[in-house]
Amino acid sequence: MSCKFYGIGVGPGDSELITIKAAKIFEILDILYVPQSKNGKESIAKKIANPYLNKDILIKERYFPMNYNMDEKIDVWNSISKEIVNDVKQNKNVGFVTLGDPMIYSTYLYVYERLKDYIEVVTIPGISSFINIASSNNFPLVMDRESLAIVSCTDDMHRIYDVLDNFESIVLMKVYKNFKSIIDLIFEKGLEKSSIMVSNSSMEDEVLIKDLSEVKKMDSVPYFTTILINKTYNR
Amino acid sequence: MSCKFYGIGVGPGDSELITIKAAKIFEILDILYVPQSKNGKESIAKKIANPYLNKDILIKERYFPMNYNMDEKIDVWNSISKEIVNDVKQNKNVGFVTLGDPMIYSTYLYVYERLKDYIEVVTIPGISSFINIASSNNFPLVMDRESLAIVSCTDDMHRIYDVLDNFESIVLMKVYKNFKSIIDLIFEKGLEKSSIMVSNSSMEDEVLIKDLSEVKKMDSVPYFTTILINKTYNR
Repeated sequence: MSCKFYGIGVGPGDSELITIKAAKIFEILDILYVPQSKNGKESIAKKIANPYLNKDILIKERYFPMNYNMDEKIDVWNSISKEIVNDVKQNKNVGFVTLGDPMIYSTYLYVYERLKDYIEVVTIPGISSFINIASSNNFPLVMDRESLAIVSCTDDMHRIYDVLDNFESIVLMKVYKNFKSIIDLIFEKGLEKSSIMVSNSSMEDEVLIKDLSEVKKMDSVPYFTTILINKTYNR
Repeated sequence: MSCKFYGIGVGPGDSELITIKAAKIFEILDILYVPQSKNGKESIAKKIANPYLNKDILIKERYFPMNYNMDEKIDVWNSISKEIVNDVKQNKNVGFVTLGDPMIYSTYLYVYERLKDYIEVVTIPGISSFINIASSNNFPLVMDRESLAIVSCTDDMHRIYDVLDNFESIVLMKVYKNFKSIIDLIFEKGLEKSSIMVSNSSMEDEVLIKDLSEVKKMDSVPYFTTILINKTYNR
């Protein structure tokens, strides 16, 4: 069987929230690429995958810049994609771990786009952080005829304004960016009692905030912060 | 430790698409409730869970009507919820399996609402069908500042019209209902080349349709049919 590239969603943080399928794929990998957001800092995705890795696997930690320098990012995506293509062409089964689900706001997608025409790609789904936050807090997302909008808070505020008016249920991702304006908007719309905010879902330093007025006093929120809003939910 | 009720998302169909956490919970259950959509027909959720169930587990298959008779449905939800509360109060660990994710368009939510005030509830997330369709087909859902709308096709057509105009990425669930009008609308908006349709994702009878004009010739589509649309994706 020819070798492949596997993009593997490892879920939000807890090692038990990966799929059986993902765990089995870790067993057959020769090489695993692990994105690092800071040089030298242990990757969260690697920590999640650790219990399932075979002992002979070669780990390649690669630095992915998390800044606004597009040229630097593109250089990194290009060079890592080339390296992966070479590995697969030299008959290695190669994996790449990504937090949450690979198809939802992941760095994996930038690598995938660059190598998909050269090697066979298999993508394994994962539990996205918002999915886990909903279940962990028994917070229903959608029932019956309701609709759900998933929006990045790095988007324009008018979009966020719009979805708060027009959807029954809203997931706000990447809240770190405009969190003060976002919280103000939620209060302005009277949705604060239908909302919860969670940072670092299922990780050791998870923070759950049910009373959003607490956020008004904060100076910053962690990078992995998500707000769920459901108009039919009232605490 | 006191006994609990576990709502368990078992993913879209493939037994390997459940989480390690779900598999471990099946080991400690005394009783498992399995919703059946037709009396006597084997439940898909049960089939998915089968490899992980302990040999002493008591399976309670319960019929959930899938029709428009609200009174009949409410009677069923009430009586099953009462039965579950009784089981937990008699010191049993009780599970309830649900396809996909428990917080997204699941029957589980109607049961959950009725018992949450009486017993402790733990909900375990699962891979929703749309999440699996995206990964299996290497179909990116959202990147960067894009937004995603998840809509039930049992909703008004004006909502669907609206999200097709205003979102970069759209998931249409429960397509069985208005599938002819939905397909026409996708062509009208020129989005047919940015769409895929999948029925029974990861099940034995999965059908993937990349060319939506084929759907125009069909008389019906299966109950578990989902369309993904991403305007930046072009096959």
